[in-house]
Amino acid sequence: MKTEHIQEPRARSTRTVISVDAMSGDRGASAVVAGLAKAATKNPDIRFILHGRKDELDRLLARRRVLEGRVEIRDACDVVTMDAKPSHVMRHGQGTSMWSAIDSVRNGEATVCVSCGNTGALMLLSIVRLRKLPGVNRPAIACLWPSRNPQGFNVMLDVGADVRADEHDLLQYALMGTSYARNGLGLERPRVGILNVGTEENKGRAELKAAHEMIEAAAEAGQFRFVGFVEGGDIPSDHVDVIVTDGFTGNIALKTGEGTARLIGDFMREAFRATPLSRIAALLALTSLNRLKKRIDPRRVNGGVFLGLNGTVVKSHGASDETGVAAAVRLAFELAQSGFTERLAARVASAKGPVHDGFGDVAGGER
Amino acid sequence: MKTEHIQEPRARSTRTVISVDAMSGDRGASAVVAGLAKAATKNPDIRFILHGRKDELDRLLARRRVLEGRVEIRDACDVVTMDAKPSHVMRHGQGTSMWSAIDSVRNGEATVCVSCGNTGALMLLSIVRLRKLPGVNRPAIACLWPSRNPQGFNVMLDVGADVRADEHDLLQYALMGTSYARNGLGLERPRVGILNVGTEENKGRAELKAAHEMIEAAAEAGQFRFVGFVEGGDIPSDHVDVIVTDGFTGNIALKTGEGTARLIGDFMREAFRATPLSRIAALLALTSLNRLKKRIDPRRVNGGVFLGLNGTVVKSHGASDETGVAAAVRLAFELAQSGFTERLAARVASAKGPVHDGFGDVAGGER
Repeated sequence: MKTEHIQEPRARSTRTVISVDAMSGDRGASAVVAGLAKAATKNPDIRFILHGRKDELDRLLARRRVLEGRVEIRDACDVVTMDAKPSHVMRHGQGTSMWSAIDSVRNGEATVCVSCGNTGALMLLSIVRLRKLPGVNRPAIACLWPSRNPQGFNVMLDVGADVRADEHDLLQYALMGTSYARNGLGLERPRVGILNVGTEENKGRAELKAAHEMIEAAAEAGQFRFVGFVEGGDIPSDHVDVIVTDGFTGNIALKTGEGTARLIGDFMREAFRATPLSRIAALLALTSLNRLKKRIDPRRVNGGVFLGLNGTVVKSHGASDETGVAAAVRLAFELAQSGFTERLAARVASAKGPVHDGFGDVAGGER
Repeated sequence: MKTEHIQEPRARSTRTVISVDAMSGDRGASAVVAGLAKAATKNPDIRFILHGRKDELDRLLARRRVLEGRVEIRDACDVVTMDAKPSHVMRHGQGTSMWSAIDSVRNGEATVCVSCGNTGALMLLSIVRLRKLPGVNRPAIACLWPSRNPQGFNVMLDVGADVRADEHDLLQYALMGTSYARNGLGLERPRVGILNVGTEENKGRAELKAAHEMIEAAAEAGQFRFVGFVEGGDIPSDHVDVIVTDGFTGNIALKTGEGTARLIGDFMREAFRATPLSRIAALLALTSLNRLKKRIDPRRVNGGVFLGLNGTVVKSHGASDETGVAAAVRLAFELAQSGFTERLAARVASAKGPVHDGFGDVAGGER
C-alpha cells in the first residue's frame, strides 16, 4: 500500500480528504467552517471530515452552499481547552474533537489533520495516537518563514516540539525538512543549513559540530545541498531553504521574528497616523501597503506541520480566523495530494541511500 | 578608590574620558573620528584617548575643530582584522589599537572603552586584560532592543559572549542587567524576565527552572522585580525591561530580530516604489517614515556592552558609520558618568544584601 503511494502519488489527487478539528481554536467552530468554505471555493477536490458538536456544525454548514455534500461530521462533544495539560488530555481526551480528528488519520480515512488547538496537547496526542515513524526519535514542528527566496518562504524546524535535539535528531530534521520543502514548496534540491551563532565551522555547541559532519555526509544521498552553519539573520535570506535547529532555539527565533514584525507594524501604523499629510499618504499607498501586509502576514504562513509521525498534522494558530484556517487547509491539501506522509516516511527510512520523494530520479552527485 | 566612586559618582561628571579604538571597524578611522565629533558637539564634557596610527589620526583630527584639545592620541600601528582569530590576537596583539584602547581602561585613564572591532577578539582581550569581576564566572554582552516601554528600549543579555550559561550565570546576568537598566536607562526597579519557550513555570530546560527559583529569591535584595519566564515575542514588549538568556539563544534572537527588521524594511521600500501613486505617498509620508526609521534604526541602539569585567567595554557594530559611532560613544559617556563600572561591581559583590547602585536607599520590600 505504501509503496503504491510512493510510486503513484498523483492517482489520489481527486477527492482528497482532510480531517479537521472544528472546536479547539480560540474563535470556535464558526471561524473554522468559514475557513473551510474559503479553501473549498478554490479547490473543488477537497473533502472534509469535521469533528465537533454535531448540532452546532450542522447549523454552521447549512449556511455554506460551497460545502454542501463535501463535509462529513463526526460528533465529538468535548473540547480541549487552551490551558489544558497535555498529560491530562492524553488520559481523558477520548471524547474531544481533537482526539477524534487525529484518529481519522490514524484509521486511514484522511492523511492530514488540521487543528487550531493547544499545541502541547495536539503534539502529545499525535505522538500517542499516530506513533513515531521508525527511525525518528524526536518528531519536529516545521514552520514556513517569509523569505527573499523565489518561493517566498523558507522552512525552519524544530520550532517547539521538543526543547532538546542531539546531532542524530538534527540529521533527521534535515531529512524531514528536505522532504517538506520538496513537497510543500516544490524545491527539487533544497539547501539545508544549521542555525548557529556564527558561520565558521568551529563555532557553537558540540552537538552542532557533530551535526555539521553528519548532515554534510548525508547530503548527496538525501538529495539536498548542505550550506553549513547559518545565523539568525539568514533565516529569511535567499541562500538557504531549510533551517535546522533544536525546538528551544527555533521557538525563540520564531516568536522573536513574529514579535519584531508586530512591533514594526504597530510603529508603522502610528507613523501613518501622526500627521494629516501622513494620513493622506497612507490612503495613496493603500494598495502597496496592503501588498506589503500580505507578504508578511503571519496568517498566510499559518500552519506549523508536525513531522516524523505516521500521518501529518497541521497546527493552525490558536487565534486563526477564516483566512488563517483557509491557509492551513490549503497547506494540508497540498501535502495530502503530493503523498507527503508516505514520501517523508520513505526518506527517513532510507537515510543512507537515495530515495524517491517527489522528483523521481534526480541525477544526484553535485552539492 | 573604588569606594569613593560608589559614594560620589557625580563628582567625576566633568571631563569624562572615553578610550576609543580608532582602527578596528570596517570603515576605518575616518568614520570613528566623524562619530567622535558628532558626539562631542552635544556633550562638552567628553574627552577622548584615541588609539591608532598617529599620522592618520592627526590628519583626520585637524579637520574637526570641535575636537580641538579634547583628544589625546596613542600611537598604535597594528590593526585587529575582522577575521583574526581571538587566540592569535591574544598572543600577538600588543601593538594593536584594540589592545591599547583596552589598556587605557586597565590602567585607570578611562573607565569605558569603545571599539567597532572583531567581537571575539575584543571579548577575549577584554577578559585577559581587564579580568573578570570577583564572583562572575561568565561575562556577558548586553544589548538594547527597541521596545514599547516608555524608555524606548529593553535590555537583553547575554547576546553572544558565551554559548553556555547555567543557573548561576543567569542569576549574575539578572543582577548585571538590572545594574545596566538602572544606569543606562534610568529605571529604578527594573522588571527582569528569563527567556523561555513558554511562560508556565514547568516549561523549558532544567537550568531555566533552577534559574527561575534563584532569580526570584534574589529579587528583593537585588531591587528588581521578577516577572518569571517571557517568550521571544515579549522581548520588545512593555511588561519586562531586562531579558536574561544564554549567549547562544540571545545571539540567535538578536540576529533574527535584526534580520526580520531588515526584511520588512526592504519589502516596505519595494512597496513604496511599486506604483507612481505609492511613490507620491512615500514623499508625503517622508517625515513620518523617517521618524519610524529612526525608532527602529539599529544604529541608534549601537553598542553591545561587555558586563562582568573590571571596566566597561562598548562594542559598536563593525560597519558603524558616524551615527553609529556617535551612539556608542554617547552610551559609553552615560555609563562612565554614572559610575556604572563601580556600581556594577558593588552589585555583583553583594548579591545577598541590598546594594546602592544609582537610586540610593530604595525602600526595598515589594516585588
